Amino acid sequence: MALRIAVLQERAPGENRVALTPETAKKFAALGATVAVEEGAGIGASITDEAYREAGADLGEAAAVVKDADIVLGVQAPDVAMLAGAKPGAWVAASFDPFRNGDLVAAYAKAGLEALAMEFMPRITRAQSMDVLSSQSNLAGYKAVLTAANEYGRAFPMMMTAAGTVQAAKVFVMGVGVAGLQAIATAKRLGAQVSATDVRSATKEQIQSLGAKPIFVENVAGIEGEGSGGYATEMSEEYQKAQAELVSGHIAKQDIVVTTALIPGKPAPRLISDAQIASMKPGSVIFDLAVAQGGNVEGSKPDETVVKHGVKIVGYSNTANHLAADASALFARNLYNFLSAFWDKDAGKPVLDEEIGNAVRLTQGGKVVNERLAAQ
Amino acid sequence: MALRIAVLQERAPGENRVALTPETAKKFAALGATVAVEEGAGIGASITDEAYREAGADLGEAAAVVKDADIVLGVQAPDVAMLAGAKPGAWVAASFDPFRNGDLVAAYAKAGLEALAMEFMPRITRAQSMDVLSSQSNLAGYKAVLTAANEYGRAFPMMMTAAGTVQAAKVFVMGVGVAGLQAIATAKRLGAQVSATDVRSATKEQIQSLGAKPIFVENVAGIEGEGSGGYATEMSEEYQKAQAELVSGHIAKQDIVVTTALIPGKPAPRLISDAQIASMKPGSVIFDLAVAQGGNVEGSKPDETVVKHGVKIVGYSNTANHLAADASALFARNLYNFLSAFWDKDAGKPVLDEEIGNAVRLTQGGKVVNERLAAQ
Repeated sequence: MALRIAVLQERAPGENRVALTPETAKKFAALGATVAVEEGAGIGASITDEAYREAGADLGEAAAVVKDADIVLGVQAPDVAMLAGAKPGAWVAASFDPFRNGDLVAAYAKAGLEALAMEFMPRITRAQSMDVLSSQSNLAGYKAVLTAANEYGRAFPMMMTAAGTVQAAKVFVMGVGVAGLQAIATAKRLGAQVSATDVRSATKEQIQSLGAKPIFVENVAGIEGEGSGGYATEMSEEYQKAQAELVSGHIAKQDIVVTTALIPGKPAPRLISDAQIASMKPGSVIFDLAVAQGGNVEGSKPDETVVKHGVKIVGYSNTANHLAADASALFARNLYNFLSAFWDKDAGKPVLDEEIGNAVRLTQGGKVVNERLAAQ
Repeated sequence: MALRIAVLQERAPGENRVALTPETAKKFAALGATVAVEEGAGIGASITDEAYREAGADLGEAAAVVKDADIVLGVQAPDVAMLAGAKPGAWVAASFDPFRNGDLVAAYAKAGLEALAMEFMPRITRAQSMDVLSSQSNLAGYKAVLTAANEYGRAFPMMMTAAGTVQAAKVFVMGVGVAGLQAIATAKRLGAQVSATDVRSATKEQIQSLGAKPIFVENVAGIEGEGSGGYATEMSEEYQKAQAELVSGHIAKQDIVVTTALIPGKPAPRLISDAQIASMKPGSVIFDLAVAQGGNVEGSKPDETVVKHGVKIVGYSNTANHLAADASALFARNLYNFLSAFWDKDAGKPVLDEEIGNAVRLTQGGKVVNERLAAQ
């Protein structure tokens, strides 16, 4: 019998994404799988039931869709109660936010389900196409700048008009990972004067390659080398102090600041203090991409516009969700790329290898089996 | 005694702009005028009272500011009741929306004030720097695209990611005046695939010069020549029909449509019907820049997101107001350029000439004196 893949409508409040698109439904069907989708699952991402049907999926109510499923796909992992009819030991491939959702992970173990946490995908070359953190961060970086531009009471590009010149906005991006790079690129597109910084000095060239100005202290001893996994290793106290002063002075001159610093499994680092906010011009905008992880900016609140010292501070609890159609398309491709890479034609199902399987697998055989969770 | 220029906080609901900035306050002072500003007038445009004070303005309550004023500046003309203390025959330079505000114009006449409607500025070369319709339309065109991009569930630029390619959005701009040109430029900046059309075929080259694709019927007899003032003159029925069909087919393939068609003193022309909306993909976005003038799009409502056939239709009653800081800066410069161009050093005040004075003057000596209003 064909492997059965089930996709539910997301239940988390405000979640508009969906873990399968008509494109990936067709591709799974081409691998020999049966695909079942809950009615209305694609609405938030502008995908009609009809579009899924045309792609060969069966549509139905949640319980009917999950019944006898071998694999359930999700953007955010569904509650265990939703999965009662799935096959014993069924896989659930989704985001679990495992460090913060211990109870959910425990419930998956207890239910005998195999939870596959997409955010634990190792950052290795062959898994890049399966990496939901990258795909969603990329869109989040774009959306952060668009939202900041939309909140800002001035235009981003320089405009030469009959009534005189409108100056280009000054945009500063703090943290140059996937989201930060896309934020730089988007702000440049919009014609802003863009600068950026990061704790890893190796990002300097990346910043320059996008046409932005790197903000790094020069001529101070003890600048860090890049450690394993691309994370910062050591910085002298002298360097840290000089860099903090440089950044502080720079923030005061900016119209827009976008902060993007996240540390997996830990609260986001504080990058901007209330005193630094007070140093900015009234009408400036700060977008805090880390607001849901505690925030890089003092006083930021998820999904609220906070005004402090005349500066607007914004940030979404779920930024990529605001580009639900593209975010779903990429998330769904990540899931497809993951499962199809391990597809065993004879078995008619995916068989994971150790490197990736052990990295993403949270629960199996009734137990929590992931090393990263054990280490907590 | 020095000429006294007064600026009030705008009273229209939601209006964030202000008719004077510290920059123009300084310039008026340099001409020898005294400048008085109502406390808090600049708040919506991120201008503090302190900044006005530093520029040499006096700050106070509304009545004190207006008292003995020779000239009152406004974005939207204030109610006559606000102007009781001004000098007899004082000038009020502001937007009046004269065709729709007959009662307001009559009240200005009755009060013996001289209303100068900035939107009646003639479209001649030397008045370009005084043209508030142009300066505000330019920003409105930018904001229309930014808002549409922010409502759209996908990204505008093509993105090459590890999870595959995100396609560029298709943006169609209908009406290529000042707002339309800036809409095209902004959508291009954001990386969209942009096309545009207009009833004036002369805009074709302007569209192409911005890197967008003009959508005009080819090889049909009877295409219009451009008439006086840049307006369309004649089009054959055959041409009109062929063009309508071409545009209809084109709309169905777009992700974003921005409509910008306004006719001074008349309701906006209908450009998009419900049937055409229904032909678009779910998740598409239409921005109706003419929504406050009756709308180019069937069913559009000011300041509301209307969803029809899965398509979002948006539009602001006052688009430039959403970029209050820049919109104020340009509006204030327009007013300064206007008054300073006519400044008579000996008299210490502006003296208008006939060409521009008669064009913008609505009321004088207790009467409505404008030809365009008499012709209504």
